[in-house]
Amino acid sequence: MQLGIRNEQSSRESRVAAPPVSVSTFVELGFDVSVETGAGDAAGFPDEEFVDAGATIVNDLSQGDAIDLLVRISPPTESDRSLIAPNGVILGLVDPAANEELLTTWGDAGITSISMEMVPRTTLAQAMDALSSQATSAGYAAVLLGVTTLTKFMPMLVTAAGTIPPSNVLILGVGVAGLQAIATAKRLGAVVYAYDIRPETKEQVESLGGRFVEAPTQTMDEGGYARAVDAETEAEQKAALAKAVADADLIITTAQVPGRKAPRLIDAAMVEAMKPGSVIIDMAASSGGNVEGSQPDTTVDVSGVHIMGPTDLASRVATDSSRMFGRNVTELVKRMVVEGEMVVDPEDPVVGPAIVAPITTPPQSEATE
Amino acid sequence: MQLGIRNEQSSRESRVAAPPVSVSTFVELGFDVSVETGAGDAAGFPDEEFVDAGATIVNDLSQGDAIDLLVRISPPTESDRSLIAPNGVILGLVDPAANEELLTTWGDAGITSISMEMVPRTTLAQAMDALSSQATSAGYAAVLLGVTTLTKFMPMLVTAAGTIPPSNVLILGVGVAGLQAIATAKRLGAVVYAYDIRPETKEQVESLGGRFVEAPTQTMDEGGYARAVDAETEAEQKAALAKAVADADLIITTAQVPGRKAPRLIDAAMVEAMKPGSVIIDMAASSGGNVEGSQPDTTVDVSGVHIMGPTDLASRVATDSSRMFGRNVTELVKRMVVEGEMVVDPEDPVVGPAIVAPITTPPQSEATE
Repeated sequence: MQLGIRNEQSSRESRVAAPPVSVSTFVELGFDVSVETGAGDAAGFPDEEFVDAGATIVNDLSQGDAIDLLVRISPPTESDRSLIAPNGVILGLVDPAANEELLTTWGDAGITSISMEMVPRTTLAQAMDALSSQATSAGYAAVLLGVTTLTKFMPMLVTAAGTIPPSNVLILGVGVAGLQAIATAKRLGAVVYAYDIRPETKEQVESLGGRFVEAPTQTMDEGGYARAVDAETEAEQKAALAKAVADADLIITTAQVPGRKAPRLIDAAMVEAMKPGSVIIDMAASSGGNVEGSQPDTTVDVSGVHIMGPTDLASRVATDSSRMFGRNVTELVKRMVVEGEMVVDPEDPVVGPAIVAPITTPPQSEATE
Repeated sequence: MQLGIRNEQSSRESRVAAPPVSVSTFVELGFDVSVETGAGDAAGFPDEEFVDAGATIVNDLSQGDAIDLLVRISPPTESDRSLIAPNGVILGLVDPAANEELLTTWGDAGITSISMEMVPRTTLAQAMDALSSQATSAGYAAVLLGVTTLTKFMPMLVTAAGTIPPSNVLILGVGVAGLQAIATAKRLGAVVYAYDIRPETKEQVESLGGRFVEAPTQTMDEGGYARAVDAETEAEQKAALAKAVADADLIITTAQVPGRKAPRLIDAAMVEAMKPGSVIIDMAASSGGNVEGSQPDTTVDVSGVHIMGPTDLASRVATDSSRMFGRNVTELVKRMVVEGEMVVDPEDPVVGPAIVAPITTPPQSEATE
């Protein structure tokens, strides 16, 4: 069984799909592992460590045998196709909504695509929840990006030259990324406010030392995901949030609705009311944006307020993001190996729902952070 | 009395010498305050706030009356000369060692230069200690720069995808900047080690939750500054520090010796022993460097270790750095105004030692962080 790991590095990708420790696990499971040279460099894993873990370093995976299992962390590229053996498998954050056509075409040709995004978020599959692991990294990195952009201190400081008040941080959307953002901002000594339409998040916010913004909330659906809100509720939320936004030095927005445009939480008038020098990190910039005027991977200045829409946040903590993703993937792959043979079982309660091509089961509800 | 504040903004300077709150104090003391347009923009203080505080906004200070007191935060420039009235005063972080010739020439022409660096570090002058206030900012900003460059988490995280160990931070030099760096790294959840040649710093390190690296220490001189160490002590320190360096994910070096080349604490062999992906911030890069191979305002990659030598750290927290500096300056200027007249008294125990040109008193011992 040939397992391949590509060098996915680009200006916005420093992660590797499996660090050396995960390669060891793959080898134990019976895989021959090939890694493209330099694949882990930006994440702090040099080629030698992959070799020590039992991998073969190659310049390009196309040079060796066809790959039975290609593991990726960033979405698939056209060039992956030629590497994969007939009836081979590609597994990773394949972004099935954006890559439906590509994956369907490959599926028609016999290649199975397994989406880490579609692994059910159940207790059984917790260790394979790559959306959560990468959202943990992204929430942490968002706060650090915001804090380094801000020209004020986070903590209160009592100095001989006067007392510096703590900064005021507002987190909108309290999922995995939002919770990590709250925890990180609290660590740094900020006064942290947070809001989510799901009322049960209030307790979570408060347990991390944050203060819940009192604004209308809305229950989630049966799958545990926040539903899109109607226009009226959205208007009420905006009014209630306006003051919290105006008071904030740093805002992190994390609200995304699976398969849909992200909700608009902050409009231009709310941005105008902010203090010059304030910073907004819109983590939903690539899916339409929670903030009016945000642009993916660009800093937009509006009356002195810096609106940022970074799409590479998890990659900024590449070492640990890669470690967690590698763990997520190895746990899933363990379910796909039976007596030294790779078996992709559509009936498996974890693997089955994650198969996005070829389509052999009824479509599952989408599940994204 | 005309007081002028320049727009000092450049790619590496976002601070302003006095924020609006300090301008109010100057006005109360009897000054007419002129501020160059946009002077506070990058620090989050728009022109309107200066106007509200009683200042006049001008395109260029050369357009108005000659300036009796020019307040700066970055070193003086040639163009300042023409703005200053005969017998006028320039006051700020004038970097007297680097600008001795310039300031002497101006002094011969009757212009008094007051160096915030030379304000005695006594209890009486604590509120005027700009080296401390800016070192506080620099130590904080150094950790944040290091943390955002590092591809690992600072805190330990227990996640479904495994436990992430905390990062290991080493602070070399425990002055004001070093103490703030320790406090900031501890806040973020790192395991923090620190070292200084002054043995009494051990208690300070430990009170902040850091661990003191057991290596040879050396007492300070009567002025409270660390003396340069001899070659033998330096070699012993290096040996003792080698292990701490090799174990660190992030190192911040802050060791500077007044008026001299910074001590070399980390040589190339020690850098080679570090893990790829590790980060070193050399806060002494512009005075010779604590780290072999560091370059001012450049990131040097040595075997995967990122060595950075930022010289604009205090500027990265421009809002609060400007507030603290403004407070430092207003406290000093209060001592220089008697019944609505500016009086620079060489006999004043705080002002006197800070006068660096014209030279009217015996040279003082230099004092830099």
